[in-house]
Amino acid sequence: MKLSKICEILDIKFDGKDCEINSLNSIEFAKGDELSYCDSEKNAKFLEACKAKAILITPNLKNLVSKECIILECKNPHLCFAILSKFFAKDLLRDKKSNKISEFAKIMPGAYIGSGVSIDNSSLIMPGAYIGDDVSIGQNCIIHPNVVIYNDTKIGDNCIINANSVIGSDGFGFAHKEDGTHIKIYHNGNVVVEDDVEIGACVTIDRAVFATTLIKKGTKIDNLVQIGHNCELGENCLIVSQTGLSGSTILGKNVIMGGQSGTAGHLKIGDFAMIAARGGVSKNLEGGKKYAGHPLCELKDWFKIQAKIHKNFK
Amino acid sequence: MKLSKICEILDIKFDGKDCEINSLNSIEFAKGDELSYCDSEKNAKFLEACKAKAILITPNLKNLVSKECIILECKNPHLCFAILSKFFAKDLLRDKKSNKISEFAKIMPGAYIGSGVSIDNSSLIMPGAYIGDDVSIGQNCIIHPNVVIYNDTKIGDNCIINANSVIGSDGFGFAHKEDGTHIKIYHNGNVVVEDDVEIGACVTIDRAVFATTLIKKGTKIDNLVQIGHNCELGENCLIVSQTGLSGSTILGKNVIMGGQSGTAGHLKIGDFAMIAARGGVSKNLEGGKKYAGHPLCELKDWFKIQAKIHKNFK
Amino acid sequence: MKLSKICEILDIKFDGKDCEINSLNSIEFAKGDELSYCDSEKNAKFLEACKAKAILITPNLKNLVSKECIILECKNPHLCFAILSKFFAKDLLRDKKSNKISEFAKIMPGAYIGSGVSIDNSSLIMPGAYIGDDVSIGQNCIIHPNVVIYNDTKIGDNCIINANSVIGSDGFGFAHKEDGTHIKIYHNGNVVVEDDVEIGACVTIDRAVFATTLIKKGTKIDNLVQIGHNCELGENCLIVSQTGLSGSTILGKNVIMGGQSGTAGHLKIGDFAMIAARGGVSKNLEGGKKYAGHPLCELKDWFKIQAKIHKNFK
Repeated sequence: MKLSKICEILDIKFDGKDCEINSLNSIEFAKGDELSYCDSEKNAKFLEACKAKAILITPNLKNLVSKECIILECKNPHLCFAILSKFFAKDLLRDKKSNKISEFAKIMPGAYIGSGVSIDNSSLIMPGAYIGDDVSIGQNCIIHPNVVIYNDTKIGDNCIINANSVIGSDGFGFAHKEDGTHIKIYHNGNVVVEDDVEIGACVTIDRAVFATTLIKKGTKIDNLVQIGHNCELGENCLIVSQTGLSGSTILGKNVIMGGQSGTAGHLKIGDFAMIAARGGVSKNLEGGKKYAGHPLCELKDWFKIQAKIHKNFK
Repeated sequence: MKLSKICEILDIKFDGKDCEINSLNSIEFAKGDELSYCDSEKNAKFLEACKAKAILITPNLKNLVSKECIILECKNPHLCFAILSKFFAKDLLRDKKSNKISEFAKIMPGAYIGSGVSIDNSSLIMPGAYIGDDVSIGQNCIIHPNVVIYNDTKIGDNCIINANSVIGSDGFGFAHKEDGTHIKIYHNGNVVVEDDVEIGACVTIDRAVFATTLIKKGTKIDNLVQIGHNCELGENCLIVSQTGLSGSTILGKNVIMGGQSGTAGHLKIGDFAMIAARGGVSKNLEGGKKYAGHPLCELKDWFKIQAKIHKNFK
Repeated sequence: MKLSKICEILDIKFDGKDCEINSLNSIEFAKGDELSYCDSEKNAKFLEACKAKAILITPNLKNLVSKECIILECKNPHLCFAILSKFFAKDLLRDKKSNKISEFAKIMPGAYIGSGVSIDNSSLIMPGAYIGDDVSIGQNCIIHPNVVIYNDTKIGDNCIINANSVIGSDGFGFAHKEDGTHIKIYHNGNVVVEDDVEIGACVTIDRAVFATTLIKKGTKIDNLVQIGHNCELGENCLIVSQTGLSGSTILGKNVIMGGQSGTAGHLKIGDFAMIAARGGVSKNLEGGKKYAGHPLCELKDWFKIQAKIHKNFK
């Protein structure tokens, strides 16, 4: 889309040299013909090295932007980005491309296979499963009945996805207008599930806004778990039932999240950390320790605190 | 059904003039040929103005009933009502009626379309979706794969319902017999979803007992959320993942419910209230404030309380 | 499978008389040609009476085993058992056997019916439902759209299973290797749902490792509930939305679990106990009482404690 057209959509004054914008991307990773946005001091550190063709930015931060980058001044860059995301959204149903289904894969009746799909040896797609466009599934996987795998998802080898789970739906991302309405952010990223991952029943894993929601090798996810957009789960994590990971939660390897635990998003949990059932994580956690409670503390402290509460107040 | 027949089913003595009862309704809204019930002091305030043809009522409250209303005395009106609800339940599969599907709507293979269905311009029904009888869907909606929309649901324009969500199943309502068994209350109400609503994946929204479970314009609901029967969500609410709203929760506009929060039902939350993640709401809340905790308090107090607990007891 | 072959797979030294092993089973119930395992002092009490043909066991416990039982010494019996479970797993898709579908049952288009299935009079299987192999469904049941019922599940009469629920998927069970990877335990048990049970939408009920996950007569389960492997729910329980029962939780009759409550597994809750919303159960509970909180206490104490916290610390 022409930059002049973008400015017209957003009602931004533009009198520079016109150019083509091919996609939207985060300030950290945008490059080439991409457009990005910056609306907070927190992300301002990326401005100097920003390689985007153009950037939506509030007036107070514009002086920090690298010279090569075209500045598009606006009051609410996040809202402008959300408005544009619809125009840059990939098609939900795409043009017919050829599929690459192994003759040793088995597609059961009632499964839907999109376009540009590859399914490798010995994988089984069960009835009612929906395999979106440009999905790839490795060897020896079982996609159970009524699982929905959205466009662009990549599944490794030896993965099991239990019934009625949903992989790759849009995350819960909106920008907010002054009149109180919310503008949807269309998610152009994807989900990548590495080898040897098992995902329970009725699990939801959201695609990334940009880039990838990543489930690394050997991780096991129980039923009814929510994994938000842009999360990254290290190798061999265990995520027990009804846990919710908010967007951009980064887990190290072998992290254990107990049942009904949760995270506030945009935080990191170190390798081998263990969150007890119901633990509510709201900040970065060092690995190798056990935590519990909400607000969270170390498990041993939680026991102590609860014992004293009961002793003093019952 | 004849009133005499109803009394026979319920083993209630009846020697008045017989009449026809067409449906069941709440004490507040019953009128015409409808039957209602009252089993608590709490609802007794509606008795004087009750316009129902007949009412199931405990002996201690019968003197409060308006003269025009036929009194059916019984020990457990709620149980009598539950028993009757089965006889007055609407058919799950209805007689064939014509559908009104826009030529600009797209129904993908493997979708099920019931009878008496209308689907407007540019709406997309994806594979495995179930559209029940007498459902209407507005313009420009996307009903994702394997979504189930039960009979009588009304969906506005520009709505997105993500994969594997269930709209309009019966709520969790039972009456209890003395022998400990539970009698199902068949739900005859529906769900109405207004324009510009987005509903996540694996969300469940129950139909109303009578009347409507209502999701107003512009509200956005994240994955794995439960909305109980007869809830009403105001415009532009944001309901984050794994939240549960018990039956008859009324949210004002622009209410934000954080992840894994919940409500006890039969309560109201004012406009622009914000419940932090995990907040457990058990009574009415004034709008415009931030709340947290379980039991709930104002967010600033929750921070103070938790800090003091950790300071004193760790 | 020959015992010598098993030892070869597990790299266990074996020089006894070879024999055939037909299946795996728990130490308590193994008999005939079955193989079991014991890796903890907790289960050592079953060793003396163990009727298994052979047992995987750590060296320190081997002296407790009954004379008739062949001892297979290993460092990690649970891991050995997990490795073997794959070899003894029942087929997901089985040889064609005849079905026994009542002429008064109704199978709607788009439903998948496996092999060896029986469906009794007046039961309704709705579109997109998946009925696995060797499933039996009683009279007068409604299996709603997109419900998945896995192999070997038994459903009684008059049951309602609402849309998109999953009955009988493998539980969340893994053994752990020293390198941090997890080995899946294939679940060979099943789920039995007795008469008059209603199960909400998007509910997940896991099959047992061995034996049966059991939902007894008259129990009602709300939406988005998780029931772990080997749970047993007594008659007429009420399990409110978003509750999670960890594996091997045993509920008596008429237990009420409030919304978003949970249990830690391997525990018993007595008849007529009532867990308030959000209650987190971590040990056995006496019946007939009301409980709340996490850690759990009696409801009246929870109110007292919370009031004092707010009074002292706000």
